Amino acid sequence: MEFGLNATHCYTFRFSQDDVIDFARVTGDNNPLHLDADFAAQTPFKRPIIHGMLGASVFTKVLGTEFPGYGSVYLGQTLEFLRPMFVDTDYEATFTVQSIDLSKHTAQILGEIRDVQTGKITTRGIATLMHKEKIM
Amino acid sequence: MEFGLNATHCYTFRFSQDDVIDFARVTGDNNPLHLDADFAAQTPFKRPIIHGMLGASVFTKVLGTEFPGYGSVYLGQTLEFLRPMFVDTDYEATFTVQSIDLSKHTAQILGEIRDVQTGKITTRGIATLMHKEKIM
Repeated sequence: MEFGLNATHCYTFRFSQDDVIDFARVTGDNNPLHLDADFAAQTPFKRPIIHGMLGASVFTKVLGTEFPGYGSVYLGQTLEFLRPMFVDTDYEATFTVQSIDLSKHTAQILGEIRDVQTGKITTRGIATLMHKEKIM
Repeated sequence: MEFGLNATHCYTFRFSQDDVIDFARVTGDNNPLHLDADFAAQTPFKRPIIHGMLGASVFTKVLGTEFPGYGSVYLGQTLEFLRPMFVDTDYEATFTVQSIDLSKHTAQILGEIRDVQTGKITTRGIATLMHKEKIM
């Protein structure tokens, strides 16, 4: 679909526990809530949850490589972590162009991550980005 | 330092190109701007920049493991990507508690990442989190 006002884009994804372990190593966020099933069992979540920022990384993946794609310059992102996300679970991210400034080549894009099975939103945020070739 | 209003915390860090490659693999964000020196040379950045979200992952690392630390539940994050960040470069992240809601056990924490050498801010954002033991 053409990148323009109200354009949408969907992307489905899942993470494995190995992804979580790699993310913890690269970022240094070794919170046992993400890595230790025994620790997580003592929390309200009952089992390990993935890093909120790992779930949100689908925003940089899709905006940077698909919609609008290569050439995007990421200027900002808001994130609301509404519900925990888990490994080995199917999620769908939906992106909707909310506003465009043609003179600045910028757009604001709403991203929402849903658990495919429950339909509930886990993470929501608005990205601001510039793309000189696709937003003009 | 005690976690309370106006408390601050500093953390210095750097990323390697191997970290960038691992982050690209885990997240799926294989934008050549981060991975391909020849491609990056054709952009205004001249050399590969790290993913904005990788730089911002210092927020989840510090908030989740140090300040306030284990037990934090991440509720939200705003991010402004003000300047590019590079590998093999020293950065300092400074965190300042901006507001606290004792009844909800929540706090808003300003995070600012500076290039140690230039002193310029590369990334700024406000985190919202809950910690039942440390914010009460």
